[in-house]
Amino acid sequence: MGITFRIIKEDDKTLARIGVVETPHGSYETPVFMPVGTQATVKTLTPEEVLECGGKIILSNAFHLALRPGSELIKNLGGLHKFMHWDRPILTDSGGYQIMSLSPLVKITDAGIQFKSYLDGRELFFTPEEVIRIEENLGADIIMPLDECIPYPSSKEKAREALDRTIRWLIRSVRAKKREDQALFGIVQGGMFNDLRLEALERVSSMDVEGIAIGGLSVGEPKEMMYEILECIMPYAPKDKPRYLMGVGTPLSLVEGVIRGIDMFDCIFPTRLARHGGVFTSKGRMIITNAEFTNDPRPIDEECNCYTCRNYSRAYIRHLFKAEESLGPRLTTIHNLHYILHLMERIRASIRDGSLLALREEIAYYYRKELSV
Amino acid sequence: MGITFRIIKEDDKTLARIGVVETPHGSYETPVFMPVGTQATVKTLTPEEVLECGGKIILSNAFHLALRPGSELIKNLGGLHKFMHWDRPILTDSGGYQIMSLSPLVKITDAGIQFKSYLDGRELFFTPEEVIRIEENLGADIIMPLDECIPYPSSKEKAREALDRTIRWLIRSVRAKKREDQALFGIVQGGMFNDLRLEALERVSSMDVEGIAIGGLSVGEPKEMMYEILECIMPYAPKDKPRYLMGVGTPLSLVEGVIRGIDMFDCIFPTRLARHGGVFTSKGRMIITNAEFTNDPRPIDEECNCYTCRNYSRAYIRHLFKAEESLGPRLTTIHNLHYILHLMERIRASIRDGSLLALREEIAYYYRKELSV
Repeated sequence: MGITFRIIKEDDKTLARIGVVETPHGSYETPVFMPVGTQATVKTLTPEEVLECGGKIILSNAFHLALRPGSELIKNLGGLHKFMHWDRPILTDSGGYQIMSLSPLVKITDAGIQFKSYLDGRELFFTPEEVIRIEENLGADIIMPLDECIPYPSSKEKAREALDRTIRWLIRSVRAKKREDQALFGIVQGGMFNDLRLEALERVSSMDVEGIAIGGLSVGEPKEMMYEILECIMPYAPKDKPRYLMGVGTPLSLVEGVIRGIDMFDCIFPTRLARHGGVFTSKGRMIITNAEFTNDPRPIDEECNCYTCRNYSRAYIRHLFKAEESLGPRLTTIHNLHYILHLMERIRASIRDGSLLALREEIAYYYRKELSV
Repeated sequence: MGITFRIIKEDDKTLARIGVVETPHGSYETPVFMPVGTQATVKTLTPEEVLECGGKIILSNAFHLALRPGSELIKNLGGLHKFMHWDRPILTDSGGYQIMSLSPLVKITDAGIQFKSYLDGRELFFTPEEVIRIEENLGADIIMPLDECIPYPSSKEKAREALDRTIRWLIRSVRAKKREDQALFGIVQGGMFNDLRLEALERVSSMDVEGIAIGGLSVGEPKEMMYEILECIMPYAPKDKPRYLMGVGTPLSLVEGVIRGIDMFDCIFPTRLARHGGVFTSKGRMIITNAEFTNDPRPIDEECNCYTCRNYSRAYIRHLFKAEESLGPRLTTIHNLHYILHLMERIRASIRDGSLLALREEIAYYYRKELSV
């Protein structure tokens, strides 16, 4: 057992619940959003800043770290927590999704994934066993198995094939796993087909996994399609395990996901958006580099009490972006992470006091036009 | 009177002294190094981090800020201190040097400097009066007048002409200055000619200025030439005013400057070097991206107690640079600023206990090969 999960409170009107996950590096409450630190750093920030923004668990990427600097190197330096100076929970994604989207000439067989490194063109071959070995070197608290993630749209035949392979790889991952201080999750695939998704959920749930991840969503399909699939399958998800919706993290999709029973989320969107000058506010999104903010003495969001909003004007942050000063993306990253992590706090509070659907209305009012991410 | 200056202790064996400068935004001890925040930000850092590194006063640039975002904008937002969230002393350089080195098609007449903006090609004309107006908009505690800074090598005729013009511009700057809460320094020019330098020092010293700046050094000449000029003129510098050597800041040149009577320094070198992976250590300089550090679990400098050295390995910092993660330049900037500001502390301590020449030997041993900057 790498983790324990217990439910503290269930919502009366929705599938939402509050839970606590305990890991070898401390505990966190769910629903939770995991800031993404792909290359063993949450871009632009120190771990202390992630913590100050409200971060409780971060996600890193086994595929990226295996390519650079290498998982043995990190193991020899004491593991990922020590390497990056973050002694709280970490989840490592396997990189199945990243291999598909970043690497040219990907060849998938039952044996594994053959691809060329995006760094140096080197031929690489990732098997489920090799990915578990990499993740055991890294030493995250929660690890994800290698899976096959298909693009949208894909045929039912393709979705069926990827589903079956993902399950076969999960069986091999469970067998390959040696460390007992890490929790392995299983990944539900099945494309945009409700029956395949239900089958995948049932098969994953029957296995020796400590959490249920929903993969292959938010890959370009309309948001409504994602919500429909969640509505179809989540009532059947095991209650006693955390459920993780991979790669989802816009304000509205977080609330909608929680309502449908999701406990964990990760997404690069809030931090990537920030680096391009896009910021969340209590009144919707804005672009800090717009000319209208040239002389604006106000903080990004007058209702926000993050470090950025306590100390800097829109005019100053706009100036930093225009002058290409790296403090600019840093300040907006702090703000956006704070916004999202504070939203998760509000979500948990609203489950406690039964006002989750009212919170959904508020977020939907300001964020319903948000693009699918 | 924008500032007051008092000497606390003079060294027996050298021209070094310890002083205290009081400004409207607090006081600082000299000899002091001013981290450079050209565009109203010390690149990659927050003001809190500059402070934690030991920064007491920072330098910003009137020329850069006048071009972007504009000095009226900063004035309307409450001045530079508030704009950039730094409520301690600031010195603004006029930008004479920057106009020469950055702008194409510079035309200098007694009236002022005509040049094209490096941002948009706009024709601009800076007069001594206009520069004072800009700096009064910005509101720094110490301001520098427009000067003419010549390249190395230059003829004596050219040096004489620039000297005379710099003095005439200083006279106009003194007359144009209105704010009484800012201290205007005068700039000593004169190329590499001892007699011109002595004349410039005498003329600047006779004027209504609150500090003596030595400009036009560290512009490509051999270090020995700079030291010789300082040895020639500094015995005649007024004792009761701070003396500022502009644009100098390698470890050894800081010690050598202090020995020759300098109280204030600024230089982009420590922070720029850091952003390219170069770091100072108690045993000399090193390049953190070198292959030898791939697996190195040690901090940059085992004798250093900066945030970076307390928490991160050489291997991790090297990884950040290789992965082009902005936390890398940030961590090395923190380290280098801490190194330089801690060196200034050691310089002040060594003046107190009479060991400055021993400190010079130590720094020279590890840094004598340092390139001229």
